[in-house]
This record gives sequence, C-alpha cells and structure tokens, in this order.
Amino acid sequence: MYRVYGMASSGNCYKVYLTLKQLGHAFEWVETDIMKGTTRTPEFLAMNPNGQVPTLEIEPGQFLPESNAILCYLAEGTLLLPDDRFQRAQVMRWLFYEQYSHEPYVAVARFIVHFLGNPSERKGDLEMRHKRGYQALDLMEQHLADKEFFVAERYSIADIALYAYTHVAETGGFDLRGYPRVKNWLARVLAQPRYVAMAQGI
Amino acid sequence: MYRVYGMASSGNCYKVYLTLKQLGHAFEWVETDIMKGTTRTPEFLAMNPNGQVPTLEIEPGQFLPESNAILCYLAEGTLLLPDDRFQRAQVMRWLFYEQYSHEPYVAVARFIVHFLGNPSERKGDLEMRHKRGYQALDLMEQHLADKEFFVAERYSIADIALYAYTHVAETGGFDLRGYPRVKNWLARVLAQPRYVAMAQGI
Repeated sequence: MYRVYGMASSGNCYKVYLTLKQLGHAFEWVETDIMKGTTRTPEFLAMNPNGQVPTLEIEPGQFLPESNAILCYLAEGTLLLPDDRFQRAQVMRWLFYEQYSHEPYVAVARFIVHFLGNPSERKGDLEMRHKRGYQALDLMEQHLADKEFFVAERYSIADIALYAYTHVAETGGFDLRGYPRVKNWLARVLAQPRYVAMAQGI
Repeated sequence: MYRVYGMASSGNCYKVYLTLKQLGHAFEWVETDIMKGTTRTPEFLAMNPNGQVPTLEIEPGQFLPESNAILCYLAEGTLLLPDDRFQRAQVMRWLFYEQYSHEPYVAVARFIVHFLGNPSERKGDLEMRHKRGYQALDLMEQHLADKEFFVAERYSIADIALYAYTHVAETGGFDLRGYPRVKNWLARVLAQPRYVAMAQGI
C-alpha cells in the first residue's frame, strides 16, 4: 500500500491526495508538518534528502519525492495521462510550467499571506509574487479560451497540478474575478468523479 | 525535421541541443535572442504564449515549450529514458528538482553575473541565489556519493538537465572546488558519445 508523507494544507501534497483518491488507490497518509521541522530530521532526510513533502513511499524503503514526478508515476497507464506522445508531452509542458512559472508565485503568495500572516517585511516580496502570479493566471485564462481542460480536451494530471494552488489562490490575495474561464475550469475539476476537497478526510 | 527556437548561450536551450545531437537527430536551429525581445513578438507568442526559449517545433505549426518537457518527448523510447517505471519516475524527480530547486538559483546567478555584469543593485538577490544554489549542489554531491549517474547507473536526460547549468556554474560565481563528485560526474557527461559543448556548432 502506498504511504504518503504530506501536509494536508499544502497544495503540492493535495495534488497527490486528489490523484490517489481519483484513481481509487488505498494509501496511508502520514501527516508531516513542515512548520515544525519534521522534514529536517535525519529520518526524513534519509527518505528525501531535499526535505520536502510530498514524498511517496511506493514499497517499504522505496521513495519518490517531487509532487509532479509522483503524479506522473501514479498516472501512467490511466486515463489521467494520454497515450499519444505529443499529448503526453503537452501534459509534461504544463507540469513544468506549474512548478516554474506558477507555484513559486501563486503558492508562495498564499504561504506569505495565509501561513505567515502577511508580515510587513515581506511586502515587496509579496508584490512580486502577485505580479508574476497574475501573469501565470493570465496565461491559463488565455489557454482556456477554446478548451475545457488543459490538454487534449480531457481531464489529466496537468489539470490536477494546476488546480491545486489555483483553487486556493484567493487565500494568497489573488482576485479571480477577472478570470471567468479559469473559474469555469475550476468548477469542471470540482465536478470530476471521486473529487475530494483539500484538507478534508485525511 | 525538428526546428528549435533557442538561444545558444542558454543552458535550458543547450539541454535540447545536446539531446538532439546525442540522439543523432537532424534539426534546424533558429537563434532567438531573448535579450532583444524576440520572444515577446506576436509571432513568437503565437508559438509559445509564455514567451520563452527553447520551443521545439515538431511538425510545422506543432509547438512544444519547456526544456524538460522537450527532453521527455525526445528521449521516449531511447536509451536516455529508462523503461522501468520507478526508474523513469526517478528521472522525472530530478527533472522537476532541476527546474524548481536548481535552475532558479544556479542559472539565475549566472544570468546576473555573466549577462547583466553583476550590477550592485542585485547584490542581495545574488547572495540568496548563491546560498540556495550551493544547497542544490550539496544535494547533488551527496547523491553522487555512490553513483556514476543520477538514475539507474546510466546516462539519462536527468544528467543532461542537471549538467546544462552545473557545468557553467562557475560563470555565475559558484566555486566547485568543494564538489569533487559533481566534477567527476561533469567529466563523465563530457565523455559521452556525440557530446557537444555549449554554444558551439549552432
């Protein structure tokens, strides 16, 4: 049985949680609070030297870090990852986009506002995160102009990865009122079979 | 024939160049200077709305952005990507690690020092990039303690992705003398068949 070391309030961990639930896998969730230094212990660093959650334990002693690498692993051979080579490459494109151009802004803004309590010394940093985060959202809004989902007109791990932090962007101070297509897409993800909300039921 | 929109001095573009050369593909290289705004024209944004190089044109009008997504696409079915599911997931793990925990520090430090001429107003930013960049190098050094290559004891796109900016880290102000295993691994990559150096022959 899969074991997930994760923090329920983390979007990166929620990606893995949602994917496992939607694929119908049994798994054990080990709640791991990064704010309490739990990922910096020698025991945790032996599992993931980068000291981050989520980390998936596939078999006892066999560990896989990096949320989007975990999604790729779990989605192989399922409806969440297209068989077609170019479509699969487009899924990868959005997974890398999410980690490079979206998460560092949308997720980190949420961290500053929601978890750190929006301290004044992070004001300039937060402004930068909002600016770049809105750029990421702009690109999503543009892409969704003629699409229901991000790749190949079907729900895939590209949608799951982008959904995780986008659907809680407002807790990071983003205003989604100017993003009607993103909001409609969020609603389509929420309507998927076996959808589970973040930080519930873990 | 593949067409690559890339900038020869960019590590992200070099990944694609090296992979294409090592796989023996014919391709056309369209030199695209991001410093001159070439990736912000309507024509370029129609190919890649994120306005970044590299962008691979697979067939006329069929575009794939994101360097590591391009590597995944090109490596499929080749010796550069293992067949085994867990090994392939480990490759993905390092590709995401590279884009999230390595490139934003090692590559951006090089950009500040080498391309912007190390302006004094970026001093604090550069210090942060060096600190986090050394953390990325530390983790690589640790991982290579008992390994020749990053995954499955064989050369893969995980090595190519990490090599691209690590082998020019010194031009970003990093001192690699404390990283003997990284340096030996760099030499092993350089010794691979059909290796081509960065910004040569394009």
